[in-house]
Amino acid sequence: MTTAPLSPSSRTTVTRGRNRAVEDRAELHALLADALIAHVGVDVGDHPVVLPVAFAVDLDGPDQGGTLYIHGSVAARWLTRSEGSTVCVTITEVDGLVAARSAFHHSMNYRSAVVIGAARVVDDPDEKARALSLTVDHMVPGRAATLRPHTRKEIAATSVLAVPLHEASLKIRAEGPVDEPEDVDAGVWGGVIPIRRIAGAPVPAPEAVDSRVPDDVVRRSEQLA
Amino acid sequence: MTTAPLSPSSRTTVTRGRNRAVEDRAELHALLADALIAHVGVDVGDHPVVLPVAFAVDLDGPDQGGTLYIHGSVAARWLTRSEGSTVCVTITEVDGLVAARSAFHHSMNYRSAVVIGAARVVDDPDEKARALSLTVDHMVPGRAATLRPHTRKEIAATSVLAVPLHEASLKIRAEGPVDEPEDVDAGVWGGVIPIRRIAGAPVPAPEAVDSRVPDDVVRRSEQLA
Repeated sequence: MTTAPLSPSSRTTVTRGRNRAVEDRAELHALLADALIAHVGVDVGDHPVVLPVAFAVDLDGPDQGGTLYIHGSVAARWLTRSEGSTVCVTITEVDGLVAARSAFHHSMNYRSAVVIGAARVVDDPDEKARALSLTVDHMVPGRAATLRPHTRKEIAATSVLAVPLHEASLKIRAEGPVDEPEDVDAGVWGGVIPIRRIAGAPVPAPEAVDSRVPDDVVRRSEQLA
Repeated sequence: MTTAPLSPSSRTTVTRGRNRAVEDRAELHALLADALIAHVGVDVGDHPVVLPVAFAVDLDGPDQGGTLYIHGSVAARWLTRSEGSTVCVTITEVDGLVAARSAFHHSMNYRSAVVIGAARVVDDPDEKARALSLTVDHMVPGRAATLRPHTRKEIAATSVLAVPLHEASLKIRAEGPVDEPEDVDAGVWGGVIPIRRIAGAPVPAPEAVDSRVPDDVVRRSEQLA
């Protein structure tokens, strides 16, 4: 695991809103832990396609800066086609709506990471199995250990894309509105509507045999509540 | 405003998980109304970049199927550079974590729209002003009417990208785990952890002159609660 600052290349150097750029790997890792999905952009010829994906992070993974794993089906053509190409994976959490005194200064509080790197299709069954377990644990921490092992057929039917976490940038906005003084003086209300994600009580599948909700699911539900 | 089914081209025809594709413009519009941000993918030479953006929808906008407006600063190079190029705008809401009886069948409940189209940089000051107001109202419905008019300087300092809503696809997953019968019989718990977004009580800016929270902010806070 690396603790190198975020930084890397001109591709991920934040040029807009430089004051929002954060160069701290710990903050990047915290965002990756909080977020449920990523949006991956791949070139498919004459235009990019952006798709939501489940993901997992292995800070001790084989890639520089750790490895970001993206999970898909073997039938997902965009995924296997992106082997070797440069992809962009963006992870964003909205933390608040910033209601300024003018339309112009309306904004959002958010955390957003942009990771750019060469996509590697994971072939090794052990790395694939590990990525699949990490993806389950990313959704419901601790759950993978409570499940039966992956079968060879399941591993073969899963495609996993690995992207190095090395080249990443992070932007965070976490403040109130930045208004013109005359708008503040005019007495218009300005402030933030905080936004967060919560979980409801777990809903058992209709055909559930055992009605006891396992601890990992209860914990995840409470974590997000 | 169009009520034509989603449809369009081979670029937005859902090839994976066809059973999750939804061809109903009303469901697309409902997702666009619920979502706070979009992720836009643009080509920047040898790779795509995916960025989170505030957005607004004008179903009566000048483009076929209505217009999706993306809001940025004039200094955001990716935005002005994307004029005429094909961009992909993806809007995703996560509605639940699907805890299956095997790692392989873990999934999420979600709604995701993918819009692909030629980006048009909005030059007309009236259309720009309208897009800016729609973006504010998308964040806090009804707020734009409570604010002073945009200044010419603010309009000039804002870049707005328009993308037609014509070429769009929508995928929705909204069900429990789809498990192997033998895993169900084994008595492992399976179900869904519902996820939703809530708002906290509005936080006034420290320099607030008027401490009364306006109705539009209260309503938005309650809508998301």
